[in-house]
Amino acid sequence: MLTWVDGHPQDAVPVADRGLQYGDGLFETVLIDRGQALAWDLHLARLRRGCRALRLPEPPIAALEADRDGLCALGPAQAVLKIILTAGGAGRGYARPQPPTWRRILSLAPAPEWPLAEYRDGIRVRWCRQLWFPDPALAGIKHLNRLTQVRARAEWDDPQIAEGLIRDADGSVVGGTMSNLFVVRDGALLTPGLRHCGVAGTMRARVMAAAAAQGLPVRETALSVMDCLQADELFVCNAVRGIRPIRQLGARSFAAGPVTRALQREIGPPWPAPGHGAGW
Amino acid sequence: MLTWVDGHPQDAVPVADRGLQYGDGLFETVLIDRGQALAWDLHLARLRRGCRALRLPEPPIAALEADRDGLCALGPAQAVLKIILTAGGAGRGYARPQPPTWRRILSLAPAPEWPLAEYRDGIRVRWCRQLWFPDPALAGIKHLNRLTQVRARAEWDDPQIAEGLIRDADGSVVGGTMSNLFVVRDGALLTPGLRHCGVAGTMRARVMAAAAAQGLPVRETALSVMDCLQADELFVCNAVRGIRPIRQLGARSFAAGPVTRALQREIGPPWPAPGHGAGW
Repeated sequence: MLTWVDGHPQDAVPVADRGLQYGDGLFETVLIDRGQALAWDLHLARLRRGCRALRLPEPPIAALEADRDGLCALGPAQAVLKIILTAGGAGRGYARPQPPTWRRILSLAPAPEWPLAEYRDGIRVRWCRQLWFPDPALAGIKHLNRLTQVRARAEWDDPQIAEGLIRDADGSVVGGTMSNLFVVRDGALLTPGLRHCGVAGTMRARVMAAAAAQGLPVRETALSVMDCLQADELFVCNAVRGIRPIRQLGARSFAAGPVTRALQREIGPPWPAPGHGAGW
Repeated sequence: MLTWVDGHPQDAVPVADRGLQYGDGLFETVLIDRGQALAWDLHLARLRRGCRALRLPEPPIAALEADRDGLCALGPAQAVLKIILTAGGAGRGYARPQPPTWRRILSLAPAPEWPLAEYRDGIRVRWCRQLWFPDPALAGIKHLNRLTQVRARAEWDDPQIAEGLIRDADGSVVGGTMSNLFVVRDGALLTPGLRHCGVAGTMRARVMAAAAAQGLPVRETALSVMDCLQADELFVCNAVRGIRPIRQLGARSFAAGPVTRALQREIGPPWPAPGHGAGW
């Protein structure tokens, strides 16, 4: 793991950092493939939206890109880049220093093991008891206040369960703890709208664009537990692990279907699978 | 400022700390008077509730008390001790390491300037546009996901405004960005219930106990803007600044009344005021 703080190799941040004190900041998890950051513009766009939502100035794009290039030049070709951008120094309690400062924290880790079976056959998923409560101003962005996901993820430790789905207080599914959910039904692609809560993943945007390009109707809509159980196909996605079919949700089994496969082909696997080459 | 991390003088934490990564932790802000931590048991009790809410094991009380004593022995007699307790090392994404670890981060700062006028005459307070959205499992505890308060506090920079009041989506007042609100009406003491959101301050508990001991009826109840504007007396309180009357809320002016004064006498000022001695 290589870590830079404000452009310098360093793996610690001051205790006074507002990211630690209040979660006053944003993050992005970017897939690096052959040294290149994938979907960079989508990650930047979400950072920009996040800054507006947090009432922070525009993110320091040029510095972030210099950090990214510097780290990627040193790291493995297949890697995961995590960017944390905090509101920096202490301020007076909840009041930020004026003008606000930034702290850039970038970590480059080797690509995680990538189980081909998860990509091909799918993953097991559970329902979380933890609910996702609304905060419309923060909905969609990737801020550092992530206790909803942490608490949901703490509900299970069975390594066979790869993801948990979180609902809102009305019982509509919001998404997974670390991925967005898609339902295929009657030839249409459905995914939860994220106006009240949830994270608008970059892979979610890519999947929606790819589906539309394939002529598939795509709709953001409320999805109940029943909608999921009655789906023709079901998958989750995120920037690092790509599209993973759901093969089991609670007691119900699914097979990865043609829509999921077509989208996987269009988006591509996260990395060339070992022994399968780039042409998998 | 003296800072210890896990019992050692140190003013930085690893980037991988879950407090920074996800806000996976809790904090307490404790008033130190003549070297002694005030209302320590109340702070500990809230930490314990917080650990349960976050699905973490019991907090490391003995170590925290050793840190507290060590720091207070080195620091000024009148001080503020901030304790941050995070879920420690990295884990796998949102999943905590098993068993969970702790990181203790304690900072001792000299007591802030304490304007006697704020204590005696009161403060100016505004309404925030930012709403406090419900998360019942996290209501009352002092976790590190504090973007609600940060965003509310970012709404003003007029140094004459000491606090902002935050409402919930139904229009009921939850509290200030850094304090709890009390309304005096018809001889009773009213304060927002905190079952859905908000922070249950240690000073709030002390004020409620003191009022009950004085024979005052005390009720947790929904309070509207109108309830505040029609109050006989209005004050906010927290552990560090004690009870501060509200002398102006939006366009409405208030005078510090007899109930507020009696509670201030009972609880005592946060520190002996300069030139006023401990007997103020």
